[in-house]
Amino acid sequence: MKHINVLLFDDFTVLDAIGPAEVLARLKDDYRLDYFSLAGGEVTGSANVKINTKPISAIMQHDILLVPGGFGTRTLVNDSLFIQALRELVQKSETVLTVCTGSALLAKTGLLNNARATSNKIAWDWVTEQNTQVYWIKKARWVADGKFYTSGGVSAGIDMALGFVADRFSQDTARKIAHALEYVWNSDQDEDLFG
Amino acid sequence: MKHINVLLFDDFTVLDAIGPAEVLARLKDDYRLDYFSLAGGEVTGSANVKINTKPISAIMQHDILLVPGGFGTRTLVNDSLFIQALRELVQKSETVLTVCTGSALLAKTGLLNNARATSNKIAWDWVTEQNTQVYWIKKARWVADGKFYTSGGVSAGIDMALGFVADRFSQDTARKIAHALEYVWNSDQDEDLFG
Repeated sequence: MKHINVLLFDDFTVLDAIGPAEVLARLKDDYRLDYFSLAGGEVTGSANVKINTKPISAIMQHDILLVPGGFGTRTLVNDSLFIQALRELVQKSETVLTVCTGSALLAKTGLLNNARATSNKIAWDWVTEQNTQVYWIKKARWVADGKFYTSGGVSAGIDMALGFVADRFSQDTARKIAHALEYVWNSDQDEDLFG
Repeated sequence: MKHINVLLFDDFTVLDAIGPAEVLARLKDDYRLDYFSLAGGEVTGSANVKINTKPISAIMQHDILLVPGGFGTRTLVNDSLFIQALRELVQKSETVLTVCTGSALLAKTGLLNNARATSNKIAWDWVTEQNTQVYWIKKARWVADGKFYTSGGVSAGIDMALGFVADRFSQDTARKIAHALEYVWNSDQDEDLFG
């Protein structure tokens, strides 16, 4: 069984994390989801949601890392302790998924350099100036490049998670999950109404 | 400021609650969101998410009640203490929003009798047999009737929350929130691919 480690921080956008998590949780024979933050404990996201997390030192298996975005990223991009910890997690992980401005954090580690990636379209200028050595693609619902999956803002993370399922399992598996969630999947990663 | 009280329970579907919550949180000058459970404390939802809640006795203002669905509803429909507590919350609340099988819980209170309502389409038979005095509408993304808003499965809750915003504020406000969330809003409540 693979471990999906969701990295949370104060002021993250809760739907960025929960949308993909709900998709991936439907593969419960294959994936186990857990929630972490640097120090562990309660983390408060958008919509005043308070989620209990374990410290990143408690991660048992580094398979898939999921990083949401949110207003908290505005200060975290300049928090060298956080970026260094994220860098180590990214290096250890087989696959890294980011949603929305989560890709700004990933870009700050330097590990996204020369890779194709996308992000939130409203925060686009801010995100892309965090690291100009990333090949940023604006018109994309999500982008997969090597071990990295990055998505547009908030809801685009659900589409990306379904795209990840399609790549790892099959289109049919992804469509079944979308159906179970009564979700109208925007399944073309290059079709982006917001980009 | 209106209070949105989100009622959680073990084994709720986390996206049922978080989708609408993320939409409504964008009206933060008008709404305050808090999370409750019967006894308070940590509640574990789908995708292994652990959310901290306050007991329902701590609700300060009964304005809007949001009730998700999920596998936990299968036992809660027969839990008379839970249904009685829900009945009291519904009576006190000005507006009640349910997502997915949350409408089965609402139906069990008897307060949805003779009202039009919808629910999850895969669990349809189970939901509708919980109370046949509700006027169940299968082909609907969401249904608004009096103080009740009920939606189809999981993701339909996001569409319903945007519909609620359109009714209370304006279509333009709802469209702006959908845009900020990069969400392709299924804005026609009677158009339902899953019904």
